[in-house]
Amino acid sequence: MVRTHTCGELRLSHINKQVTLTGWVQRLRDKGSLLWIDLRDRYGITQLFLEEGISDAALLQTARSLGREFVVKVEGIVAARLSKNDKIPTGEIEVKVSSIEILNASKTPPFTIEDETDGGDDLRMKYRYLDLRRNPVRESLQLRHKMAQQTRAYLDGLNFIEVETPVLIKSTPEGARDFVVPSRMNPGEFYALPQSPQTFKQLLMVSGFDRYYQIVKCFRDEDLRADRQPEFTQIDCEMAFVTQDDILSTFEGLIRHLFKTVKGIDLKEVPHMSYADAMKYYGSDKPDTRFDMKFEELNKVAQGKGFMVFDDAALVVGICAKGCAGYTRKQIDELTEFVKKPQIGAKGLVYIRCESNGTYKSSVDKFFDEIELARFAQQCNAEAGDLILILAGDQDKTRKALGELRLHVASQLGLRDKNKFAALWVRDFPLLEWDEETKKWNAMHHPFTSPKPEDIPLLKTSPGDVRANAYDMVLNGTEIGGGSIRIHDRTTQQQMFTHLGFTDEEAKKQFGFLMDAFEYGAPPHGGIAFGFDRLCSLFGGADSIRDFIAFPKNNAGRDVMIDSPSAISEAQLKELSIEVKK
Amino acid sequence: MVRTHTCGELRLSHINKQVTLTGWVQRLRDKGSLLWIDLRDRYGITQLFLEEGISDAALLQTARSLGREFVVKVEGIVAARLSKNDKIPTGEIEVKVSSIEILNASKTPPFTIEDETDGGDDLRMKYRYLDLRRNPVRESLQLRHKMAQQTRAYLDGLNFIEVETPVLIKSTPEGARDFVVPSRMNPGEFYALPQSPQTFKQLLMVSGFDRYYQIVKCFRDEDLRADRQPEFTQIDCEMAFVTQDDILSTFEGLIRHLFKTVKGIDLKEVPHMSYADAMKYYGSDKPDTRFDMKFEELNKVAQGKGFMVFDDAALVVGICAKGCAGYTRKQIDELTEFVKKPQIGAKGLVYIRCESNGTYKSSVDKFFDEIELARFAQQCNAEAGDLILILAGDQDKTRKALGELRLHVASQLGLRDKNKFAALWVRDFPLLEWDEETKKWNAMHHPFTSPKPEDIPLLKTSPGDVRANAYDMVLNGTEIGGGSIRIHDRTTQQQMFTHLGFTDEEAKKQFGFLMDAFEYGAPPHGGIAFGFDRLCSLFGGADSIRDFIAFPKNNAGRDVMIDSPSAISEAQLKELSIEVKK
Repeated sequence: MVRTHTCGELRLSHINKQVTLTGWVQRLRDKGSLLWIDLRDRYGITQLFLEEGISDAALLQTARSLGREFVVKVEGIVAARLSKNDKIPTGEIEVKVSSIEILNASKTPPFTIEDETDGGDDLRMKYRYLDLRRNPVRESLQLRHKMAQQTRAYLDGLNFIEVETPVLIKSTPEGARDFVVPSRMNPGEFYALPQSPQTFKQLLMVSGFDRYYQIVKCFRDEDLRADRQPEFTQIDCEMAFVTQDDILSTFEGLIRHLFKTVKGIDLKEVPHMSYADAMKYYGSDKPDTRFDMKFEELNKVAQGKGFMVFDDAALVVGICAKGCAGYTRKQIDELTEFVKKPQIGAKGLVYIRCESNGTYKSSVDKFFDEIELARFAQQCNAEAGDLILILAGDQDKTRKALGELRLHVASQLGLRDKNKFAALWVRDFPLLEWDEETKKWNAMHHPFTSPKPEDIPLLKTSPGDVRANAYDMVLNGTEIGGGSIRIHDRTTQQQMFTHLGFTDEEAKKQFGFLMDAFEYGAPPHGGIAFGFDRLCSLFGGADSIRDFIAFPKNNAGRDVMIDSPSAISEAQLKELSIEVKK
Repeated sequence: MVRTHTCGELRLSHINKQVTLTGWVQRLRDKGSLLWIDLRDRYGITQLFLEEGISDAALLQTARSLGREFVVKVEGIVAARLSKNDKIPTGEIEVKVSSIEILNASKTPPFTIEDETDGGDDLRMKYRYLDLRRNPVRESLQLRHKMAQQTRAYLDGLNFIEVETPVLIKSTPEGARDFVVPSRMNPGEFYALPQSPQTFKQLLMVSGFDRYYQIVKCFRDEDLRADRQPEFTQIDCEMAFVTQDDILSTFEGLIRHLFKTVKGIDLKEVPHMSYADAMKYYGSDKPDTRFDMKFEELNKVAQGKGFMVFDDAALVVGICAKGCAGYTRKQIDELTEFVKKPQIGAKGLVYIRCESNGTYKSSVDKFFDEIELARFAQQCNAEAGDLILILAGDQDKTRKALGELRLHVASQLGLRDKNKFAALWVRDFPLLEWDEETKKWNAMHHPFTSPKPEDIPLLKTSPGDVRANAYDMVLNGTEIGGGSIRIHDRTTQQQMFTHLGFTDEEAKKQFGFLMDAFEYGAPPHGGIAFGFDRLCSLFGGADSIRDFIAFPKNNAGRDVMIDSPSAISEAQLKELSIEVKK
């Protein structure tokens, strides 16, 4: 190897050793007679040292010619530093340089390669290869690497087998929009890129591979909201001959293993919560349980006192913000403005201050006396010093709005600490959801999810009430994974397609191979897929998944570094039997 | 879990244990009063046992109703077998069944699920999920899994970091044909699927990630020859601050590690051979070195004796087939026919039999006497009992033809044993190769490969003689991996593009980002990529890569199981701003 050591490796034990280092010039400090260079590589920073009168003149000249980000090969002797730097692991030593070879020069980078950079997002993305030199980005990718390795270690240990499923598959109109690939050899026909390996992993169960996983790229051609990527990575898993609880405990084990090995954290046992309870107590199917602030339904104490907003509401529901009685008028107005934003959609906010002297002050004093307000407080487990925040209206919308308010208040109170982790299983999701636009029932998870057997009769009478054997894992209020026990017999699968509005012909054309497979000894099976990009970003304590992806695309789906997508030649189009429509 | 044990797990030590097994009915033997069922899962086969008069009547009835490939859950007690079966690890026990639950029935499979099946290729592919139940196919995928895990273990141990590079990238006219993906959000523009992550891994080196790898899907839209797939998997690697020898020894280490851990074989040190020598001594850039049979150039002994075929030839070259002097006239005729086939292209074949009595018999006795023939034999290290086979003609064509003959004879002699492994590094490949069709020089490896510095002056005068810092690993006559030391400075890269006929504008448009990157401190770097599908098939001793891919495509690029590619809707085409050209 060109180097004898990395820039993160040398310690006092190496003193007097002749070493060769390679790396990038991070910084040069020239004090006239003394000259220091910080040499950086992926492993750390090592201080190089040269001295006027002792170091060779030509060598000094070379050293002084070095600019930021020059790549060099340096030889020298390890020496103890006079003034140690205890901030870096190599801070006790420096290397007295005897030769410098410039392996490559560098123009001045368009932004500084430091932890905090002056480069904006666009610039950083255009020069992503320089951005990747920055510690936080490099560390994010190293974390991702470690997460992937530990995921494999855990699953391998349980006899899971990693099987690669195809990337060039078949387009189906179900779900999100597919990316498609014109087939040159089959003119007029297209492959699709997989939104997930769903049907293939189910076929592997039919094949008897009973424990499958894959860390796999998936693709969705959706309009990109912030922090969504057209290509993303899943930890995709499936098991046969298991119950839902087997799956939950196996993959709770995975998450606990990752926390333990990657972050040194002993994650608490992951509680289970039904979808119904999650909506009822948190107004969300992905509650953030790092903090409490559970919903209290207040219809009983709130209604019948002449306050029309409460009296007309299907639901009056509140949360108790601990220790917030001191919120100013302005702070409460801000919360009111928050809930009235169109994306939240509440009409107004009622508050009750539980004053430290045991009295109450509320925005509805006109309708409720002290005793009645005390009842609210009691119902909400509010004590002196707390603030009760109440919304009222239609059940689902009010819950969702209060769920948003809960998160908003918790953020203000610093309860959403990125270094604290709370995981949760949400289960018993509805099987179907009503699509207002198309006026039909869609599969909430996907059409292969099995209904709870006891709910099957409801399919005809009350489809929205049918619960599925479906579950999500939620971490800190973010869904990090989801799955289900699948249908494994042709009859039920066909029924499901019918309920989703497929004609028999459509179902057969698109998923005939799967239904056929179910007739040749398909075992009961189920699985889960974790969003790997998001999981990494949560482990890394970051808001965005962007820096956990080496070469991400922007919100227009463009890679600005390589300038893609781009036009292709007429010859290429002709070979593919397609034309661009102007 | 539904089962307590797998079907490969029970031993004498489990006797009298109550167990629950799940799996597929492989076979049912009904002897009237005694009934055996072979239950199969991924882990093995366990014999189940029922007895008339002892087992419950309803249970017996259920057992008798089972068909091949039914999925069942069985409870029972482990008992010692009266007649052991030492062919399977569970052969000492059987399970006395107390209950059977049919988890799913099965229609009669379209082919038998046995090691040797009656299913043809098309049928097996259409029902791939059943084909995957067969031991040889399942074991192939398990081998692949193990290869992947061990590849990662080795590279992780050397501080390589696995980084996922994008799948939606940019189309470039260089090299093979790209698969493209129309961008809905950028009408008229297309992504391309990567033929390899080449430029991205080089950018990672510029970023300082100094040791990268990825087991990654790549795509090439080529007319499919037998045993080529439009999507295939590479072990893709790159290192910075290394010499070519560092790379060769690192990845020789990988292959040795795989042989050791996956097959328990201590692979010999991998010899190095120049491309020039490989062509000279084996007529191939991927010589099969499981056996010797090196070429001997015979111009000196062959020419000037009046045999025009030899006298007019640029090269007279032979191989010695050990112990083949007894080849019949018919056998030698067959070899002559072989070399005269159009794809081999020789005009004829000269042989010299080294008879056991020390005399010689040849097809050119008219021109060469015993003493002269003895000289041929001496030159070829041929002894009594050997057969010398000689071709003559134009240098390159003759070498290639003799290379084919060498393999053909070796196959006949059983020298190409699939359980024997010989690896070889072939290095110093030519940088460029002449394309007769386009009348221009193409990069033999790819345009990022660095020329040997001492050969750079030849670029202008004799481009075909410039050697590259490029290398292939060859295993048993198959190229399993190849790579090079890359260009890492803008000037050389630009020069290379010019030599390959790129205008400056084209080079900038397609690879400007890479040349830009080279100006910001790009370290010296190089790498390699292994064809993972092929590597697995060689380890598995198979001729085809097909069974080492879970869901392969056929030679028309079709997945006959899911029936893909397929037509997509007009609405989809419209959204993508493309039209199918009729």
